[in-house]
Amino acid sequence: MASPADSETWMTLVVQPNDTNPLGTLHGGRLLYWMDECSSIAATKHSRAVVVTVSVDGVSFRHAIELGSVVTIRARVTRTFRTSMEVFVEVWAENIPRNQRIKCNEAYYTFVALDERKQPLVVPDVVPTNEEERRLFDGAMRRRQLRLILAGKLKAEDADALRALFMPENPDSKK
Amino acid sequence: MASPADSETWMTLVVQPNDTNPLGTLHGGRLLYWMDECSSIAATKHSRAVVVTVSVDGVSFRHAIELGSVVTIRARVTRTFRTSMEVFVEVWAENIPRNQRIKCNEAYYTFVALDERKQPLVVPDVVPTNEEERRLFDGAMRRRQLRLILAGKLKAEDADALRALFMPENPDSKK
Amino acid sequence: MASPADSETWMTLVVQPNDTNPLGTLHGGRLLYWMDECSSIAATKHSRAVVVTVSVDGVSFRHAIELGSVVTIRARVTRTFRTSMEVFVEVWAENIPRNQRIKCNEAYYTFVALDERKQPLVVPDVVPTNEEERRLFDGAMRRRQLRLILAGKLKAEDADALRALFMPENPDSKK
Amino acid sequence: MASPADSETWMTLVVQPNDTNPLGTLHGGRLLYWMDECSSIAATKHSRAVVVTVSVDGVSFRHAIELGSVVTIRARVTRTFRTSMEVFVEVWAENIPRNQRIKCNEAYYTFVALDERKQPLVVPDVVPTNEEERRLFDGAMRRRQLRLILAGKLKAEDADALRALFMPENPDSKK
Amino acid sequence: MASPADSETWMTLVVQPNDTNPLGTLHGGRLLYWMDECSSIAATKHSRAVVVTVSVDGVSFRHAIELGSVVTIRARVTRTFRTSMEVFVEVWAENIPRNQRIKCNEAYYTFVALDERKQPLVVPDVVPTNEEERRLFDGAMRRRQLRLILAGKLKAEDADALRALFMPENPDSKK
Amino acid sequence: MASPADSETWMTLVVQPNDTNPLGTLHGGRLLYWMDECSSIAATKHSRAVVVTVSVDGVSFRHAIELGSVVTIRARVTRTFRTSMEVFVEVWAENIPRNQRIKCNEAYYTFVALDERKQPLVVPDVVPTNEEERRLFDGAMRRRQLRLILAGKLKAEDADALRALFMPENPDSKK
Repeated sequence: MASPADSETWMTLVVQPNDTNPLGTLHGGRLLYWMDECSSIAATKHSRAVVVTVSVDGVSFRHAIELGSVVTIRARVTRTFRTSMEVFVEVWAENIPRNQRIKCNEAYYTFVALDERKQPLVVPDVVPTNEEERRLFDGAMRRRQLRLILAGKLKAEDADALRALFMPENPDSKK
Repeated sequence: MASPADSETWMTLVVQPNDTNPLGTLHGGRLLYWMDECSSIAATKHSRAVVVTVSVDGVSFRHAIELGSVVTIRARVTRTFRTSMEVFVEVWAENIPRNQRIKCNEAYYTFVALDERKQPLVVPDVVPTNEEERRLFDGAMRRRQLRLILAGKLKAEDADALRALFMPENPDSKK
Repeated sequence: MASPADSETWMTLVVQPNDTNPLGTLHGGRLLYWMDECSSIAATKHSRAVVVTVSVDGVSFRHAIELGSVVTIRARVTRTFRTSMEVFVEVWAENIPRNQRIKCNEAYYTFVALDERKQPLVVPDVVPTNEEERRLFDGAMRRRQLRLILAGKLKAEDADALRALFMPENPDSKK
Repeated sequence: MASPADSETWMTLVVQPNDTNPLGTLHGGRLLYWMDECSSIAATKHSRAVVVTVSVDGVSFRHAIELGSVVTIRARVTRTFRTSMEVFVEVWAENIPRNQRIKCNEAYYTFVALDERKQPLVVPDVVPTNEEERRLFDGAMRRRQLRLILAGKLKAEDADALRALFMPENPDSKK
Repeated sequence: MASPADSETWMTLVVQPNDTNPLGTLHGGRLLYWMDECSSIAATKHSRAVVVTVSVDGVSFRHAIELGSVVTIRARVTRTFRTSMEVFVEVWAENIPRNQRIKCNEAYYTFVALDERKQPLVVPDVVPTNEEERRLFDGAMRRRQLRLILAGKLKAEDADALRALFMPENPDSKK
Repeated sequence: MASPADSETWMTLVVQPNDTNPLGTLHGGRLLYWMDECSSIAATKHSRAVVVTVSVDGVSFRHAIELGSVVTIRARVTRTFRTSMEVFVEVWAENIPRNQRIKCNEAYYTFVALDERKQPLVVPDVVPTNEEERRLFDGAMRRRQLRLILAGKLKAEDADALRALFMPENPDSKK
């Protein structure tokens, strides 16, 4: 058992010309690559095992990131489901000389830990220790049910955590 | 107006050592980069404009892809929402000498088209022309409502296309 | 036996800043790399074996390709000579927003297929099925004789397909 | 006026895992990229101008180059034709600990020099100063005629340097 | 004025096949690149300006870093000299599944901050706040004098901080 | 035994957009990578063995190198110490069209040669054959003592070659 803070991983990079798209801002695919790497390290720390990416969801690109920006990526395991781990990734871009820093992206990456024969490994539970970690922990179940429904592996009526969101009487339904 | 087939884009690549992770299979981040590039071309074809990635969802990694595999990526616009376009991306890996080909990944990338002042541009509608295209078109509304709910921009009770999935009387709820 | 269409391979890419030369257009060496990869996939499809490049000829760079262009590469096997395969590669660059598309390059890559002990493998014949495929098929013999003469492995007077080009009575000598 | 030695350019590199193909040897496309870069420097030295690749011919890959090999590339301008320059490129691979060095590749790259408005620039003549340089100089005319014939820009019967090769009475026809 | 902790920057990466040398361990040049990037961010944080590398010293590679290792890099500004900043960089490699972590490298990078006309900018002083920071601060003067002597810009007899090291009476001369 | 000239290695490259920093000049980390590769080849030539980088010192970046410059790197072994070799690296940048060439960098890289069990190997001595080589040879001992002092492996009072620099009576102390 470990808290999200135990797997927290920080990555800091500068957007080089090599990383840009034809508009001169950070290439979206490059950022997906970096987020994958940062979140895989968080999952490795939590599981103490080799991990592979199994899904990516909820990646939102809010702002273009300029050439020369300092990009900070933070990843931490929010919850586990036997052999899989959900990692929440956040991305900030900073123009240090102008003293500007904005949040640009968020995403949820899911990993499975593998043993030496490349078979899925049961991973330790996550124990949230504060409000934010608990919110991420609770949401992880709903995101998981969504993934399973969209992948055709779960019937909507069996997705209890999710259904609750759509019930009129649900006081939390506004999220 | 155009059909998904009009924006269809194919990319073919070989997994080089340069593209692998320490396990010797295709690095997940690299595949996310390639899918981003392939789907951005599909969105460019549909909108005839410069596009930027705004979100990525439902990326599922089903099988590790071996070094030396031929990777085929197919992307097409499934539906548009005024200024945004959802692109469905599929990935197959092929071991040609062994005559094996399997589907390895799927994802939904969303793009916005920009005009010359980098402002969002209204894009043409998509007209599905067969059963599969219609299924993708219908699902796009549900996936969009999900993104908005998860991003806190839509209340669950207002997500009509999605709610229908969770209503007990809904005969399609098993998807 | 297979037709050139059976090995046809399409690759689509966007010219990123990463791919440019100091003039801001696509680096010639990068395009040679991409053409090599696309044509090697076509040769792999035809031979169903691992292939290695043995020669490259007739690469012509007609137009500089701008940053942000969509590059489409098409490769297909034109003819085989026991263990070697000639692949014809064509390259188009497209500025989709301006609706411009021009042919920028052509080349002939030759591959040998290898068996598991890395020895050359006899490959199936190519059967041309239309006028253009037949023209490529016929030209392949002349191009092969040229390669052999230039490499000092064939005497000019033994290069029958080629000599015919230079005989005054030859009605096709204008190509 | 300058001799081939005046434009001679040497490049030395180590084959890193990053440069290999799935067989674990140097990727053919990577070598084409390096040869392009090395020969473009030779053409820049000769013309003292910005240059762009216009064609590549006669690239022969004789031996696979192992991971860890030291690759030496040598390029020099052999002859010019008003605005274009032919560069002869040679590639050796060396296993220094085992004291082995073999010639692996050769190629002819052609460049055009550009002035500041990106218009072709007349370049200085090449003056060969020894036997080998003269042989390359003479062959350049034949290679140029071949390129023009294959590109449909010259009739075979007008290719005098080349025709001489195919005339029975030609004592040099064996090359 | 700021302490070293204010500019502290952490970078975390995984050694991918792409980053290795022919021995299969992290390429020394790649690590130098990463250390340069990490330390330049620390210098940017301290100066709130664009910075350029002016020198690198004392890079010691103590242990080869294996493929798949998690590399952690930490950089912080130790002392400034009007327009230049010395950054101390440390590198650890971790095999998380085996729970091993060792320090592999250290280095001193020096940067100059530039204003908008690319002229050197006076940077704030560093105020060390603990024993380790003070030791780095004091050593920085000696390292600077060394750089200047080796660069021929300072006479050895004027290098007071350094000379003290070599005076027999110096009780700290053992360092 | 061999002279520095026997291990001399030249590398020539063009600064591509891919190699630049956000200021549009050559990325310092990229140059460190290239210098590492060039100097490792020189050390391999001298030792006829596989080598690994053990330290880097005295890297001075004197001038920014512009996009499109031709970079020439020269490396040669200056002196050996049983199993280690010091390599002196010099870097010039050239704007060939403008006929400008300036020296931009210098550095000292140290390598150790490894035998097949990855154990350090005794390497041949260097015999300097001219004034410049002798100056580099003599300085190597002082640089080595400096590295050892800074690394805490040598007491300053035992660093005889270095101490001589700081003695008032030393007529060479101005370097």
